[in-house]
Amino acid sequence: MEKTEIIRHSTAHVMALAVKELFKEVKFAIGPSIENGFYYDFDIPKTFSPQDLPKIEKRMKEIIKRNLKFEKKEISKAETKKIFKDQSYKLELIKDLDKITTYTLGNFTDLCKGPHVKSTKEINLDAFKLIKISGAYWKGDEKNKMLQRIYGVAFETKKELENYLKQQEEAEKRDHRKLGKELDLFVFSDLVGPGLPMFTPKGVIIIDELKKHIEQICMKYGFEKVLTPHLAKIKLYELSGHAKKFNEELFRVSSERGHEMVIRPVLCPHQTQIYASRPRSYRDLPIRYMETEKQYRAEKPGEVGGLNRVYSITIEDGHVFCKIDQMKQEIKNLVKIVKDFYRPLGMWGKHRVSLSVRDYKHPEKYIGDSKDWDTCEKMLKQISDEMNLKAEKMEGEAALYGPKLDFMFRDAFGKEIQIPTIQLDFATPKRFELSYVDKNGQNINPVMIHRAILGSYERFLALLIEHFAGEFPVWLAPVQVQIIPISKKFNKYGEKIIKQLKELDIRAELNDNDETLGKKIRNGELQKIPYLLIVGEKEEKDNSVSVRDRKKGDLGPIKVNKFIEKIKKETEERK
Amino acid sequence: MEKTEIIRHSTAHVMALAVKELFKEVKFAIGPSIENGFYYDFDIPKTFSPQDLPKIEKRMKEIIKRNLKFEKKEISKAETKKIFKDQSYKLELIKDLDKITTYTLGNFTDLCKGPHVKSTKEINLDAFKLIKISGAYWKGDEKNKMLQRIYGVAFETKKELENYLKQQEEAEKRDHRKLGKELDLFVFSDLVGPGLPMFTPKGVIIIDELKKHIEQICMKYGFEKVLTPHLAKIKLYELSGHAKKFNEELFRVSSERGHEMVIRPVLCPHQTQIYASRPRSYRDLPIRYMETEKQYRAEKPGEVGGLNRVYSITIEDGHVFCKIDQMKQEIKNLVKIVKDFYRPLGMWGKHRVSLSVRDYKHPEKYIGDSKDWDTCEKMLKQISDEMNLKAEKMEGEAALYGPKLDFMFRDAFGKEIQIPTIQLDFATPKRFELSYVDKNGQNINPVMIHRAILGSYERFLALLIEHFAGEFPVWLAPVQVQIIPISKKFNKYGEKIIKQLKELDIRAELNDNDETLGKKIRNGELQKIPYLLIVGEKEEKDNSVSVRDRKKGDLGPIKVNKFIEKIKKETEERK
Repeated sequence: MEKTEIIRHSTAHVMALAVKELFKEVKFAIGPSIENGFYYDFDIPKTFSPQDLPKIEKRMKEIIKRNLKFEKKEISKAETKKIFKDQSYKLELIKDLDKITTYTLGNFTDLCKGPHVKSTKEINLDAFKLIKISGAYWKGDEKNKMLQRIYGVAFETKKELENYLKQQEEAEKRDHRKLGKELDLFVFSDLVGPGLPMFTPKGVIIIDELKKHIEQICMKYGFEKVLTPHLAKIKLYELSGHAKKFNEELFRVSSERGHEMVIRPVLCPHQTQIYASRPRSYRDLPIRYMETEKQYRAEKPGEVGGLNRVYSITIEDGHVFCKIDQMKQEIKNLVKIVKDFYRPLGMWGKHRVSLSVRDYKHPEKYIGDSKDWDTCEKMLKQISDEMNLKAEKMEGEAALYGPKLDFMFRDAFGKEIQIPTIQLDFATPKRFELSYVDKNGQNINPVMIHRAILGSYERFLALLIEHFAGEFPVWLAPVQVQIIPISKKFNKYGEKIIKQLKELDIRAELNDNDETLGKKIRNGELQKIPYLLIVGEKEEKDNSVSVRDRKKGDLGPIKVNKFIEKIKKETEERK
Repeated sequence: MEKTEIIRHSTAHVMALAVKELFKEVKFAIGPSIENGFYYDFDIPKTFSPQDLPKIEKRMKEIIKRNLKFEKKEISKAETKKIFKDQSYKLELIKDLDKITTYTLGNFTDLCKGPHVKSTKEINLDAFKLIKISGAYWKGDEKNKMLQRIYGVAFETKKELENYLKQQEEAEKRDHRKLGKELDLFVFSDLVGPGLPMFTPKGVIIIDELKKHIEQICMKYGFEKVLTPHLAKIKLYELSGHAKKFNEELFRVSSERGHEMVIRPVLCPHQTQIYASRPRSYRDLPIRYMETEKQYRAEKPGEVGGLNRVYSITIEDGHVFCKIDQMKQEIKNLVKIVKDFYRPLGMWGKHRVSLSVRDYKHPEKYIGDSKDWDTCEKMLKQISDEMNLKAEKMEGEAALYGPKLDFMFRDAFGKEIQIPTIQLDFATPKRFELSYVDKNGQNINPVMIHRAILGSYERFLALLIEHFAGEFPVWLAPVQVQIIPISKKFNKYGEKIIKQLKELDIRAELNDNDETLGKKIRNGELQKIPYLLIVGEKEEKDNSVSVRDRKKGDLGPIKVNKFIEKIKKETEERK
């Protein structure tokens, strides 16, 4: 375990002791280290409030100053029953353990396999902070009791903590829920219910532009669009294996007329059925389907929130069906598609690639022929080399049915997220008896390649909002241009320009509200509109506009046709 | 009752007598006249086969020649029990009757209120035909026994029958299920289930072109796109009134995690929730939302089939929220949208308009203020006059919440179908407490206008396939151009042209199969591709193509750039 991690976990124990000293009747659940910090789950009659955090923090500092030792002990099951007699959660955990160790800090003894720092003096007084209280079910299961969790962050140095807090503050300003509301991109309704976002006109513009972008790229590489419904018989997913995999997350559908179906948790099986709808010849391959449609998953009600965890998932999904000797070229094309998609967003280059292969020690975890696996893994490595992807080999990260290339990005909070993926699949075509007739008249199963470029529009939109802090590039901005006449007298001139812009599909609006010029400009900036065009007497006379660029500020007067040329170019080039 | 209808109903009795004479143990259910003919439902141990129809027809002609009288009798309930003692269906029908009449034809006495022709000689021997056997539940209820129904058609003259049969034959060639398969536009899968069509790449091209067409038009009139999910709490529809209206057709959704929702039967309530998501001012109105998304209805399993009756309905739906004084202009714009959409399809002009107003004798059937109704009905009449719509006033055809304009077309079978509709609605905004702040700071409910342009893509596609007999206009054709090289030597030249065409978004493909030129041309024609371009030595030398127009046949050689100009123009103008 890394040093920082050990500090984080030790700080969790310090927090537990502080809570024990400050409040009565506390039962301890678990308190692990996590990314950037730690948490501890408490079962306690009192309801924690944010005002309690500084108090606990103060007591933690006192404890640290006491320079207490972490004392480790190996004990028998019989002993634990005495030590943890009032700690039902610990007793429950002990049941599953063979070897039991405890760590004692002051008068707080915890069931823990360690490791810990030797004594509290190794914890930097100025490098930790308690940040959040939340509810958490015991063992993450909503059927269990809801406990109170306190989150903290901890580092080795004060500087690291400060940097982290600053980044968090910045990230919170970028929070997609906050910006989504301010920029009017998506909404929720109590009547519709949680986990079901609805996209407003401005949100749909972004979704549509992304969709157009992805479709243009994919069609260049021979993808064709299909359109499939959200329901199917459960049998479809029993055959594909998803019924088992998504059992709890499946939405089941019934009617008074006796219908029994499910809402799809994934799109792949529907697309296999279009392939299967007529005989295919080797001459027809590769067949490449793409589709932007919804899938639904019954997430835990307590966990849905924002756009990152929703019931209704608008997925951009695609599949290639091809011969083995076409596989390499297809995968290369898919990598090119990923690159073409992410480059204009300024995200290509800020990623890393994982070559997710088998867990070689446990070949029994996978299906398919081991020779096929060898061939495919070798081919992906070759592709990585030939295309300079610098893919890192990640053992045990392959899918059940084949190895894959995963592309990882970082969100505004610095957290790594995987979006694009290219997965080889020999199993599904066999399960669905997909085939083509080869040159010799034989029936052969094609290879299926799963590919995701942006994943779900909900999560991708959340990522983009936070990535750009709402300042979408011109081609994605819901309103690209706002015209602000300095007085009513110039509304007509403004409308004339709007008309010119709209004819070229530039999204422009006139701000003719009864507000001061300053307020209008401020509002336009809050709405993060790329260009505000101020027009008055001088501009009308010159057939020009005074341009305020969202990033560069006042650009001064520019002839209308020059401005149109400029924005048209930026939009077309997706800059 | 019209003469023809009387003949049709009388022919049903003749058929029943023929069946009684030919087969034993027959129980009679009902036998009404219908559009173009009649049917009778029989409960009989024998299973009818198509081979039985000529036999029954022959016996019917013999019966007609006997010149039998239809003898009417009024009888008491007691008597019926004797007469129909073996006819359980008739006995069940009698229960609900006050006055009982029978008609006797030969030795067949039927429970019937008539009227009938006086004697069989009034039925034209050469003007009827039995056409189809099908299953039908007693009283249309799938919980009841399945009976055998024989359909016939009957007219006054031989000529009318011949015309009808010819039209049917023509219509069957146009049947969207048949053409949909041949042209590979949509498919069904046993694993996915019935009533859930999946659209292939070619089908999606048509849907996408229609969508682009409708969105271009609607955006010109200020519509904005929104995107909403398929699920909601049942409460949303209890409030809107749809839960009651669609009770049996509602798909209910549940999960192992305790979720309880429904799949939406309509889109309107979701769109109201986007309106409701923030405060609106009179300055924001009109607000116009449009959306192409699916709704689901649990149709009776026995009734789903083709694209006309499905569970998954891809609807093109839109709503305007406006002030009362904006209503007239908005409705006029909506009429213009309908016109702009249908004109390029050659369907504008082949329609009639219905001004669907209240049933004045039963004002209690409607909600809302009668003064509002008067204003609205008068306004719709004015609009009809000003726009020369020649709308026919149809009493009792209004919606629950307001009057409407409906546009009716005819399908390939001559059946009238209603697609576009413009409906005024004062009730829904009140139910959902939608409001805007007017100039005086008061909260006012907006008017809601529901508008459908093409209705559902499934039904509209069925209509279009049948309307064009698969020969879609160039802008809609999935493949617009196929290039047929006369030998392999010219594949390269063909590919060069394909590249040029694709760059201009013209959907072109190369036919380089190992088939004879004649067969390739025949296949291209079967696929109803607008233009086949034959290329050989002469064409390559001249930089030309030999054009075969789907309708006009061989157009001879044309320079490539001239052809591109021509097809580009046709596509852009949606000709």
